[in-house]
Amino acid sequence: MKQETQASTHPLARFAARLQWSDMPDAVQRRAEDLWVDWFGSVLAGCQARPVASITRFALAQGPGQGPSEVIGHGASTSPMMAALANAAASHVAEQDDVHNGSVFHPAAVVFPPALAVAQSIGASGAELMAACVAGYEVGIRVGEFLGRSHYKVFHTTATAGTLAAAAAVGRLLKLTPAQMQHAFGSAGTQSAGLWEFLRTAADSKQLHTAHAAAAGLMAAYLAQDGFTGAQHIFTGPQGMAAGMSSDADPARLTDGLGTRWATAETSFKWHASCRHTHPAADALLQVMRTHGVGTGDIAQVTCHVHQGALDVLGPVVSPSTVHQSKFSMGTVLALAARHGHAGLGEFDRDYLAPETVELREKVRMELDAEVDTAYPRRWIGKVTVQTTDGRQLQGRIDEPKGDPGNTLSREEITAKALRLAAYGGAVPAARAEAAVQQLWQVAQWSRTAALLA
Amino acid sequence: MKQETQASTHPLARFAARLQWSDMPDAVQRRAEDLWVDWFGSVLAGCQARPVASITRFALAQGPGQGPSEVIGHGASTSPMMAALANAAASHVAEQDDVHNGSVFHPAAVVFPPALAVAQSIGASGAELMAACVAGYEVGIRVGEFLGRSHYKVFHTTATAGTLAAAAAVGRLLKLTPAQMQHAFGSAGTQSAGLWEFLRTAADSKQLHTAHAAAAGLMAAYLAQDGFTGAQHIFTGPQGMAAGMSSDADPARLTDGLGTRWATAETSFKWHASCRHTHPAADALLQVMRTHGVGTGDIAQVTCHVHQGALDVLGPVVSPSTVHQSKFSMGTVLALAARHGHAGLGEFDRDYLAPETVELREKVRMELDAEVDTAYPRRWIGKVTVQTTDGRQLQGRIDEPKGDPGNTLSREEITAKALRLAAYGGAVPAARAEAAVQQLWQVAQWSRTAALLA
Repeated sequence: MKQETQASTHPLARFAARLQWSDMPDAVQRRAEDLWVDWFGSVLAGCQARPVASITRFALAQGPGQGPSEVIGHGASTSPMMAALANAAASHVAEQDDVHNGSVFHPAAVVFPPALAVAQSIGASGAELMAACVAGYEVGIRVGEFLGRSHYKVFHTTATAGTLAAAAAVGRLLKLTPAQMQHAFGSAGTQSAGLWEFLRTAADSKQLHTAHAAAAGLMAAYLAQDGFTGAQHIFTGPQGMAAGMSSDADPARLTDGLGTRWATAETSFKWHASCRHTHPAADALLQVMRTHGVGTGDIAQVTCHVHQGALDVLGPVVSPSTVHQSKFSMGTVLALAARHGHAGLGEFDRDYLAPETVELREKVRMELDAEVDTAYPRRWIGKVTVQTTDGRQLQGRIDEPKGDPGNTLSREEITAKALRLAAYGGAVPAARAEAAVQQLWQVAQWSRTAALLA
Repeated sequence: MKQETQASTHPLARFAARLQWSDMPDAVQRRAEDLWVDWFGSVLAGCQARPVASITRFALAQGPGQGPSEVIGHGASTSPMMAALANAAASHVAEQDDVHNGSVFHPAAVVFPPALAVAQSIGASGAELMAACVAGYEVGIRVGEFLGRSHYKVFHTTATAGTLAAAAAVGRLLKLTPAQMQHAFGSAGTQSAGLWEFLRTAADSKQLHTAHAAAAGLMAAYLAQDGFTGAQHIFTGPQGMAAGMSSDADPARLTDGLGTRWATAETSFKWHASCRHTHPAADALLQVMRTHGVGTGDIAQVTCHVHQGALDVLGPVVSPSTVHQSKFSMGTVLALAARHGHAGLGEFDRDYLAPETVELREKVRMELDAEVDTAYPRRWIGKVTVQTTDGRQLQGRIDEPKGDPGNTLSREEITAKALRLAAYGGAVPAARAEAAVQQLWQVAQWSRTAALLA
């Protein structure tokens, strides 16, 4: 076997190391700003949740009691790694953060927290911060696509590909050379981890996954800046990520359209506060109810025609025992959407175990659908068949669930969603959240990244 | 699928949560002390190596500048997590730390650093510290055996099973209940990572692997103490560790002989300063040279009859470009052993690229051997065939390489090895290392774990 100690750098490492804010089309810059503001709402919604509070206490106990990086919503500061750990844990718990369909990957949760923590530490400009975040999105999404569907069956892609996304974002802020970026990828990939098993017993691991990805990716980038080396072929080498964690990896996805195809702009906003796999069916059900004037009492049965990934992730959740687990229960999500027109955070908290919800939940089943499965993950089609109590059989279909790039949120909707999430979290007064969101929209003009909630 | 939110605790979690120093046979206690002193030498040998220095700088930058836990050999202290990160990185770089044959797992590097850091932080007694370390050994070794040979082909078991070992050791010190220990296992397993790919390009990841395992396992245990939950079936669940990272996992290994079979006492000391896969052949070659009066100049060719794991790990290393990589070159190790009678740290540093070494290295080949492969990993048999320049064909065979339980080191040899390693590292004066080692032998009598190098 040929020894390779001086392998040429991977195009993805070169891309991430060289990306400039000014290189991006205006639409990509604007979408990146949208995603940034949308993320802030998720952090504020989640920062006081029990599992997040545990991780935050740990981070503050193990890190310095003061530092350059903000622990959002806790009025605390610490080192970049520890702030990234806490903020990344907070980002994903409300299940309202963004998602990229093709990679089934939630970039915001693992990109913005480490990038923000490092930008605050080194005083990066807003444009530098945002360029780094787009680098994180572009890398993480492509790594997720590369790892493929077989990977996602067992591994939580947001955790695994997320480690690479975090390394890319932090690496860009630290101005790594392409060769250093490649080493950072090697160190990130060899720490890449996160198994779906937790969901079966409603455990807290999802918050640990984003925290771990953010912290491990950040460490990989700092180490690379200090000369620490990583595997040169971490993606496709015979003992690399694909060899260990995928059976259908596609190396072409790693470099697909670099610099011309902007994966960042393909990222969807979440409208319902649940696992994205439930959204297409929820929207299709709402369409049936609207179109045919069906009320919740008229529903005898709902069959959701879904892709295999939905069965893999949602299938084990039959009788949810926590609010968080109920966001992975197709029946619960559809029941809440049907009852309230929207399955939001408040609806879950109040009603996930209400008798009316449970009754409706039990009428929902899932079934593999060839068309939906073939289109997935590039397109997330929603298809339902509703049996009514008076014997009708009604079909609903949605080609782009609300929040997808072709059915996106306006800036007003994004601001409103972020403030709704902030109010839900209750960590900061409304006026303070509102002032922060107004500032966040100006990120590209910042000469220096300061605290978001000064 | 049946929902399981209140699964009974796994026997391995119960065992780790309840293990007492006084439960162990005398021979196990003494062997644990042997391993503890042996580990200390490895830390002092490695603490100033370049990759370790990078990780230590990162740990001290991201953690508090002072704390309860010692960063060995750096005259520094910080939080438990950051000290564990630095000390675990230092433990494995000299390739002189211990190894358990059946699991192909290096327990010391991932068990002692997190346990020591936490014991110093909470003021645990020496017996509590050592009981926790034995819990870490017993758990990590069984997890490594469980994950099996298919796992080891791609994953570095010391990194992956090591995360569980660290969680068990720290969890025991924190007095986790069996249920909490099970949650800690879930949180550790879902962070479990480490790919062999780095070795192909002589990258620094091995030090990151032990650091990551120690820190991630420690975090899992602290989180469990705070009520943070993990997957209940992290080992064998449909989306757990075996599902993601093994094709020949054997669940029976997880509980094999708990409390009667002491895996800790099966752990081997390393005599040569190289990958353990090279030791059986090196000892067999030395036997041929001794028995038949063969000198290095008489050797025309050496064929090592090895197990598949040796080919997987050592096969890619054909022309080593760094001292560390040369420790995975069968040819280099045999050449140094043949030339000096022992392949120690000094021999590698001075001679790994000496013309005489390279010349001899090129005469060494490996070949899969059915008997050796079948015995592996329970027994690591060394078998070589030496062709001499005068046409003889000589067979060498070693059933237990030096340092294995049946061919172990005396306490004098362990002390001497530790002091030799300390001198090699040069981080502390000889008298100080000697005083520390004398103290370390008394660990079971300590009322409170203080700094090792006060």
